[in-house]
Amino acid sequence: VINAGKSQHNEDQACCEVVFVERRPSPRGRLLSKEGCGELAGGRKGFYFHYWALFDGHAGSGAAVMASERLHLHISEQLRDLVDILQDPSPPPICLPHGPVELSQVPFTEDDGDVPSDAVPRFHLEKAVSHESLVIGAIENAFKHMDDQIEQEQVSQRLAGGCCALAAIYLMGKFYVANAGDSRAIIIRNGEIIPMSREFTPETERQRLQFLLLGQELPHLEFPRRIQPKELGRKMLYRDQDMNGWAYKKIEEDDLKFPLIYGEGKKARVMATIGVTRGLGDHDLKVFSSNIHIKPFLSCFPEVRVYDLTQYEHCPDDVLVLGTDGLWDVTNDKEVAGVVMEVLTSYEPNDPCRYTMVAQELVVRSRGVLKERGWRLANDKLGSGDDISVFVIPL
Amino acid sequence: VINAGKSQHNEDQACCEVVFVERRPSPRGRLLSKEGCGELAGGRKGFYFHYWALFDGHAGSGAAVMASERLHLHISEQLRDLVDILQDPSPPPICLPHGPVELSQVPFTEDDGDVPSDAVPRFHLEKAVSHESLVIGAIENAFKHMDDQIEQEQVSQRLAGGCCALAAIYLMGKFYVANAGDSRAIIIRNGEIIPMSREFTPETERQRLQFLLLGQELPHLEFPRRIQPKELGRKMLYRDQDMNGWAYKKIEEDDLKFPLIYGEGKKARVMATIGVTRGLGDHDLKVFSSNIHIKPFLSCFPEVRVYDLTQYEHCPDDVLVLGTDGLWDVTNDKEVAGVVMEVLTSYEPNDPCRYTMVAQELVVRSRGVLKERGWRLANDKLGSGDDISVFVIPL
Repeated sequence: VINAGKSQHNEDQACCEVVFVERRPSPRGRLLSKEGCGELAGGRKGFYFHYWALFDGHAGSGAAVMASERLHLHISEQLRDLVDILQDPSPPPICLPHGPVELSQVPFTEDDGDVPSDAVPRFHLEKAVSHESLVIGAIENAFKHMDDQIEQEQVSQRLAGGCCALAAIYLMGKFYVANAGDSRAIIIRNGEIIPMSREFTPETERQRLQFLLLGQELPHLEFPRRIQPKELGRKMLYRDQDMNGWAYKKIEEDDLKFPLIYGEGKKARVMATIGVTRGLGDHDLKVFSSNIHIKPFLSCFPEVRVYDLTQYEHCPDDVLVLGTDGLWDVTNDKEVAGVVMEVLTSYEPNDPCRYTMVAQELVVRSRGVLKERGWRLANDKLGSGDDISVFVIPL
Repeated sequence: VINAGKSQHNEDQACCEVVFVERRPSPRGRLLSKEGCGELAGGRKGFYFHYWALFDGHAGSGAAVMASERLHLHISEQLRDLVDILQDPSPPPICLPHGPVELSQVPFTEDDGDVPSDAVPRFHLEKAVSHESLVIGAIENAFKHMDDQIEQEQVSQRLAGGCCALAAIYLMGKFYVANAGDSRAIIIRNGEIIPMSREFTPETERQRLQFLLLGQELPHLEFPRRIQPKELGRKMLYRDQDMNGWAYKKIEEDDLKFPLIYGEGKKARVMATIGVTRGLGDHDLKVFSSNIHIKPFLSCFPEVRVYDLTQYEHCPDDVLVLGTDGLWDVTNDKEVAGVVMEVLTSYEPNDPCRYTMVAQELVVRSRGVLKERGWRLANDKLGSGDDISVFVIPL
């Protein structure tokens, strides 16, 4: 993690942990566990997950620091109720039995999957829910709890700003990659690039934002540029939450208010305020030159993608790369894959340092070298002006 | 178009037209047109588009009949203002000049693309808008106007029910395929299948529905099956509008109300009422055994996909297939491609009847043959119980 002289403090934060999820003590657990879950020295029952995460802070590092210290604990907490269920090969129960008192009357196994007798004729199916989707749900809710905690402690902890969060959780043979913001994860397997995330920005989330703004005081139409007052009454291109195409409409007074999206690409901002539409924190952030909180339009929920390691053969050169936008602003998936292969081949396959060297090389190349006219890349273009953080994880 | 004995009336409707879009008379038009647009005998200026559409009605054929008679006229109406712009190779103007009076003071070409001087520093870009996205916007708005017209005339015309709509518009070298509902379009080119639509159902649009239900009186959580009153207080799997995974929550009184999605797959219904989430009409439809209108949760807006015919070489066996769900319920893309190739090779490449024969064969095979135990397919499975309509359009 480095900073190319943009500011004094690094707003990127990182965390890497092995986390033990201990089963919550409950009579149900003991009744349920046919297979039994791993009993550890000292009688603690549970499982481990491996965890790597990047937090790219903005308007301060407070939210990023707190999230880097706590997010994995929230994930662990959400998983605690699932310890038995995830280790039982049968499908997860749709409905859990009541508390300990009624357990003897309502045996868990018989009750699972019953279909209500009062259902209307059209309703006769029960949705199949996989173990995997329980883990996804647990991670999604962990992000929500993390965001709630930042809100609760922002005053006492003097937390400023917010952060993007990208986390990779390795659990029971699968990688769960959760992304909220504009960091990016890719897998490089046998030279092939497999995207493990997508970025959430004003442009990729336009329609979600427009839906949220409907019925608010704020304008929800998108225009291709800001409207000038003198253009009132003329016809300008617009699109609303239902449209992907553009059409002309007559400009009215209301359209002169705040534009939904300012600028394009990396410069795009929601209501001239923020360039990412998902992440943690930002509870105090207000719309540029206004008194309107922007938090309701930001989402703390990640998109979770799953990669099943047991489905493929992997060699020592196959890796998962996590990077903040400081990396991706000046490079792309293909170039990163090139650097990965170039550096890995220069080390012995069993040298554990080789992955660290890849990460270092990726960071250094994106930062560039300090010349007379600023930090410059190998092609003499400007280096990344942002904090840069990279994890390279062997598969 | 056939009906396999399910009902007396066919609820599918179809339309196929060549439509002339006449430029709306305006001084701006004359000022603008540098290239000039096609002047026709009698001095009419404009262009043609080719149009094919399928309308799959439900709860009556009224909406389908009206849409089949009028949708292309609404599309034409939306395109009228674009006649000059679409024929001008330069990018569409972001803002049109005022009406005829001020035209001399505000020359159209100079005004196009100016950037407001009062923009805040972050805003210095103007979005590029393509001709293609203007056509998409015109089609989207035409669907909206069609839906509004059905609402306005439903009393006087005794229009019942609603319909899915799938339309293919060929204009200036490109196919625009617009879909609202569960019909489907595919292109078969050189044996390869190119999907040109996706279906809009309670399952594919769950999160959009959940967002709309937020803040309404109606419950917005999804459960894997209907909850029984006796299950109150127990924990059941659920997911909300932000989640793709599932988690457990304690069942409360409110959760016993109407389930958002009933059933799974083809049987899934929004609040036990309707199996498609986009289409025209249904303004009177109420949620099953309630007094709540369901229209606000249905969308009349199509998704429009574009296929540029000029980008590829085509042979006489390359076709666009449009079909209502009566076809797709009992077959799939690959089987359809197989029938297309099988039938086409049995006719001369220049025989114009060969495409009609493909459509007929697709319909007959999906209907099956009437045997003692109902209509049966070649594999003895039950034939489609729905109306079946197919267009096969040579590329």
